[in-house]
Amino acid sequence: MTQRMTDEEYRSFLLDTARTAILATVRADGRPHVAPIWFDLDGDILIFTTGESTVKARNMRRDPRVSLCIDEDEPPFHFVLIEGTAALTADDPDLLYWAKRLGGRYMGPHRAEEYGRRNAVKGELLVRVTPQKTLAYKNISD
Amino acid sequence: MTQRMTDEEYRSFLLDTARTAILATVRADGRPHVAPIWFDLDGDILIFTTGESTVKARNMRRDPRVSLCIDEDEPPFHFVLIEGTAALTADDPDLLYWAKRLGGRYMGPHRAEEYGRRNAVKGELLVRVTPQKTLAYKNISD
Repeated sequence: MTQRMTDEEYRSFLLDTARTAILATVRADGRPHVAPIWFDLDGDILIFTTGESTVKARNMRRDPRVSLCIDEDEPPFHFVLIEGTAALTADDPDLLYWAKRLGGRYMGPHRAEEYGRRNAVKGELLVRVTPQKTLAYKNISD
Repeated sequence: MTQRMTDEEYRSFLLDTARTAILATVRADGRPHVAPIWFDLDGDILIFTTGESTVKARNMRRDPRVSLCIDEDEPPFHFVLIEGTAALTADDPDLLYWAKRLGGRYMGPHRAEEYGRRNAVKGELLVRVTPQKTLAYKNISD
């Protein structure tokens, strides 16, 4: 039976396995846009990086309201939805730190440095999403 | 190196493994909304079901423009983005057929009947998304 995750289960679901998140933003013409991202948490703040010329970056600069879904692809299909507001910063002093953390989290610790340097480049933005609403469900198909 | 999938790889990626899709729609106030769904293909048309009172159903009835992401959660992080238009039908004669197919695809053939009957109920809509644009990438992190 579908149940809410506890706070502890929520953090464990987001952090213990490096799942991608799907980020939704809205285009200038009102259509929704989605893209998969690598993310990490800084306390409750969700962190990721993106190039300044990407569709998602341009959408968030126009309208910072975003939604994210992190889900388990197999039964019993746990999932988390996060609605929040994105703050984008260029030339952020923490960009390399987070790019390395994300590289290590998704590609393995031995590749953190390589992926950090690959992604912490000119034009790459650091994005911080402050959640306004969170839904976290487990055992959807049970 | 990131590459486009061939048409054959695209269909194989969507169908050979029963991954969830993340559906993005837009709320009345302009915020994006996301939800994980079970889907199948009917030719090029993407099929799923949803309750008529869900946020996503209400959003699609207001504005049928949707985006979907189906992605691989692990390296090398293949993913498919589909932008299209959703058509929703109530009391669709094919609802039970698709609900069973979806149940079998995601829960295993032995549970198709059970999940089909559970989901093909009054108030459940059949949704058909006609893709207008498709992006299919493989080997993102290589």
